[in-house]
Amino acid sequence: MKRIEALKQVVFEKKGFDGFLITNEANLLYFMGFPGAPCILISKNGRSVIYVYSVNYQQVKAEAKDFKVELVKRGEDLGTKIAKKVKALEVKKLGLDTIAGVPHVAGYLKLTKALRETTKVKIENEAVRVLRRVKDEGELELMREAGELTSIGMETAYEAIKPGVREYEVAAEIEYAMRRRGSWGTAFETIVASGVRSAFPHGGCTERKMKKGDLVVVDIGANYQHYCSDMTRTMVVGKPSAKQKEIYEIVRLAQEKACRVVKSKVKAKDVDAIARKVIEDAGYGKYFVHGLGHGVGLEVHEPPTLNRESKDALTVGNVVTVEPGIYIAHLGGIRIEDTVLVKRQKAEKLTKGPYTLETKQQT
Amino acid sequence: MKRIEALKQVVFEKKGFDGFLITNEANLLYFMGFPGAPCILISKNGRSVIYVYSVNYQQVKAEAKDFKVELVKRGEDLGTKIAKKVKALEVKKLGLDTIAGVPHVAGYLKLTKALRETTKVKIENEAVRVLRRVKDEGELELMREAGELTSIGMETAYEAIKPGVREYEVAAEIEYAMRRRGSWGTAFETIVASGVRSAFPHGGCTERKMKKGDLVVVDIGANYQHYCSDMTRTMVVGKPSAKQKEIYEIVRLAQEKACRVVKSKVKAKDVDAIARKVIEDAGYGKYFVHGLGHGVGLEVHEPPTLNRESKDALTVGNVVTVEPGIYIAHLGGIRIEDTVLVKRQKAEKLTKGPYTLETKQQT
Repeated sequence: MKRIEALKQVVFEKKGFDGFLITNEANLLYFMGFPGAPCILISKNGRSVIYVYSVNYQQVKAEAKDFKVELVKRGEDLGTKIAKKVKALEVKKLGLDTIAGVPHVAGYLKLTKALRETTKVKIENEAVRVLRRVKDEGELELMREAGELTSIGMETAYEAIKPGVREYEVAAEIEYAMRRRGSWGTAFETIVASGVRSAFPHGGCTERKMKKGDLVVVDIGANYQHYCSDMTRTMVVGKPSAKQKEIYEIVRLAQEKACRVVKSKVKAKDVDAIARKVIEDAGYGKYFVHGLGHGVGLEVHEPPTLNRESKDALTVGNVVTVEPGIYIAHLGGIRIEDTVLVKRQKAEKLTKGPYTLETKQQT
Repeated sequence: MKRIEALKQVVFEKKGFDGFLITNEANLLYFMGFPGAPCILISKNGRSVIYVYSVNYQQVKAEAKDFKVELVKRGEDLGTKIAKKVKALEVKKLGLDTIAGVPHVAGYLKLTKALRETTKVKIENEAVRVLRRVKDEGELELMREAGELTSIGMETAYEAIKPGVREYEVAAEIEYAMRRRGSWGTAFETIVASGVRSAFPHGGCTERKMKKGDLVVVDIGANYQHYCSDMTRTMVVGKPSAKQKEIYEIVRLAQEKACRVVKSKVKAKDVDAIARKVIEDAGYGKYFVHGLGHGVGLEVHEPPTLNRESKDALTVGNVVTVEPGIYIAHLGGIRIEDTVLVKRQKAEKLTKGPYTLETKQQT
């Protein structure tokens, strides 16, 4: 409810709306704390309403004590129902979030049409984003837990990787370790990409058997009570070569330097620049094919963005990744990533793990 | 490529388009076989183009041999790039998929604006849906494997559930068992909902400890090479009561009767009606708060839909769930679900497991 009040402050007082429809899945989680409803309508003149289909009605009723819960009956059209309510509340200017592509284009067009004589409908993405990118203490508690669970998963990776084991088998051990300690699942598809596949930043994991000398990029994240974490380490099966060590140390230095400058008021693109300079100076600039990082929270990718084009500045309460990488086709890739919390003076790492290429299985 | 040709047949020959933009994530998987690209543009006059950002460029180049792969460079706007290409190809009528809410409303509006003088842009959801709902042999091989993995997960649930164990701990065992055998992850968030929480059809799983007499709804699905499976069994911790057995037998009969009539040319709503009648006749009609089932494939919920409003008819190659349930607030819920393949004469169950309330731990 405190969050709904904060949203009202932004959209009603500052942006001149008198109604707002929340439809984005992560935004719904942010305001309700649990999934199961397709939208929330808030308005200047009435109580906030959660709409819900019959399948989840009992659950939402039980959990959403601060809201009016309205059942969408069988055969009722949600869009029509909302349009009617918007008219009844005499909303003149309705805002609509759509960060992740929701609502459907068709739904948007329909709502706009139904309200064309009474209400102006306008997409307003920034309002909720601005709230969500600054995590409150309740959120940070969950994100710290997600970080701890992810670190446990990474520890497991260092133990499980050895010659002959398959990528998906390592993923199984990692996910099981996180789950056993209370993870709600993974924040994204686990990546255990070995050998030449390690050169693909989003390599997923396959049935490939690891062999001595392979680089293995392990990029994992636990989900704890809907909050995500994101962490990468790169290992070598068996003993690392001199070349692997050389590239590793460059990425390591880039990541460390970038982490060190992460704090409030720093420009996101400047953090990217610091990591990128280390890699460019070493002659590997063209192999760093992505931005340095991204915000993390209810979604694993959310604002702010840390790359060369970013216009974001970091503020206290942002949680972001710092993840430089070097990817050389046919040879392999190396990436190091932590999820960090932006504070006034320096960053707090939410993911913790050794910075080493060496696994615990050297046989 | 065979699938792209089939799509061309539908959208160019039958529907009068001369260009089509695929942006929906599951549709992209259907045509490419792997993720990592934001869209594919096909046209009557040119080669099919996959657009891809630099982070995934090497991977898509390596895997998408049949397509032209175009890099979206840093600073380039994807929408502008597509609009330019559409104009260059002299596309007069461009179709656009948007099943799961992609592309963003904002993206759609932008594209429409950029092309307003040269090209008519029209949302066309049905074309790809119609193709995707009939699975080919290659897809069925993957779906059978997903079904087997899910059945292994359910076997594990029957072994893991006992007094004192937490919901998420059971989920950990289930997911680990599926992963170890080759699952790529879960098709959706695992549900292990016990006690009063079993009355919530989408109960997820929590830290709740199970106790004797609890109903436990276990709803799980493996993902195998992007194909989903979906299966539910309900168990009792310890010995089932007479009342639990009574309700269980009603759901069991409803599910069995419905499965028996699933075959080609049957109306989806008639299958729902058969299950619903069993439950209504027993006096529990109002506790069956959802439709009977849904299509499964690259998405865990896709057409056709089996409920009272459905206009779908089943055809050979459809894969659907059959999942009646009875949910009584404060008492608990019982659901039984299998994923089945529609054939000419009868359904083939892709998920297999015992139909019993009794776990293997009776202590």
